[in-house]
Amino acid sequence: MEERMKKQMAFALEIDKVKNIFRQTHLSLRGRNENDAEHSWHMAVMAYLLKEYANEEVDIAKVMLMCLIHDIVEIDAGDTYAYDEEGLKTQKAREDAAKERIFSILPEEQKAEFTALFDEFEAYETAESRFVHAIDNLQPLMLNNSNDGSDWREHEVTAEQVYTRQRKTKLGSEKLFEITDAIIQDNIRKGNLK
Amino acid sequence: MEERMKKQMAFALEIDKVKNIFRQTHLSLRGRNENDAEHSWHMAVMAYLLKEYANEEVDIAKVMLMCLIHDIVEIDAGDTYAYDEEGLKTQKAREDAAKERIFSILPEEQKAEFTALFDEFEAYETAESRFVHAIDNLQPLMLNNSNDGSDWREHEVTAEQVYTRQRKTKLGSEKLFEITDAIIQDNIRKGNLK
Repeated sequence: MEERMKKQMAFALEIDKVKNIFRQTHLSLRGRNENDAEHSWHMAVMAYLLKEYANEEVDIAKVMLMCLIHDIVEIDAGDTYAYDEEGLKTQKAREDAAKERIFSILPEEQKAEFTALFDEFEAYETAESRFVHAIDNLQPLMLNNSNDGSDWREHEVTAEQVYTRQRKTKLGSEKLFEITDAIIQDNIRKGNLK
Repeated sequence: MEERMKKQMAFALEIDKVKNIFRQTHLSLRGRNENDAEHSWHMAVMAYLLKEYANEEVDIAKVMLMCLIHDIVEIDAGDTYAYDEEGLKTQKAREDAAKERIFSILPEEQKAEFTALFDEFEAYETAESRFVHAIDNLQPLMLNNSNDGSDWREHEVTAEQVYTRQRKTKLGSEKLFEITDAIIQDNIRKGNLK
């Protein structure tokens, strides 16, 4: 096998490990914890399905790829729960080291491409990254809502924390923020969010 | 919420069930069985990564979306193992019924779009569908090879069966068939394939 293809196949095998990184979110129907590969798959389909609600026109291939790769760094860095204050402090340093190690398995120009795409996601500046963040917030909110807010109740999350987390959803999609807001209000009424 | 958005969100929640459809393939490092959401995620990333090896130029957004949705019908139809002769006889009827039920949750024109994309995948006629099939074959081959062919050994799969299954990989990618062939030959030498 040629050197270039060897590197690509080594990367393809390495990212299999994303399937073992579990999140705090539970699958619908009171299922088990969700892993990063499932979450990324779900986000990519939802992004395509809901693309008409992005505030600005988006390059949908770029959006889907960003959804698919945004959590690969968690192979080394682990999942940081949205409401884990301590973990959030060290998240960037852990993810930067992971990004360097994992994307370096790729041929040079693909490493550069995937690194740039991950950095673009993190920077929250382009229409695509803002829309992907909106979906990244909406997908677990939808699952958690389908389970009567059990993830929030377990972690004693407050409505204020959820609103703080979700405030940037508006940057990517005013329309998806409307759904978000309706779900949060409904869960406050039900006592699932303090 | 508007009627259209309600339907889209109902579909987004319904497809969460794909994460509970388990395949015969095991994750690398002798892991547990893989599910359809993980498989579809892995395929979409690999398709992007390896797109230069498609025989013909492909629309990569279409390729990724086809990877992401091609197994949604298995929510109702279940996974049919590549070497299950009895299951293969009824696969099409089961999947057609599933396609009708599940895609009907969507707004009419998105139902038509997803149905057409699934049918295109099944028909094996376009450059995109042929390339997606090549990836659909390569991804489990790669995992199984990383586990010393344990899935083949468990099911007593023969080299002939694998070659029959993989012969269409060439239609999508001559280059990926070269990897496939090298992996099969190596596993015959090791006694993992009869």
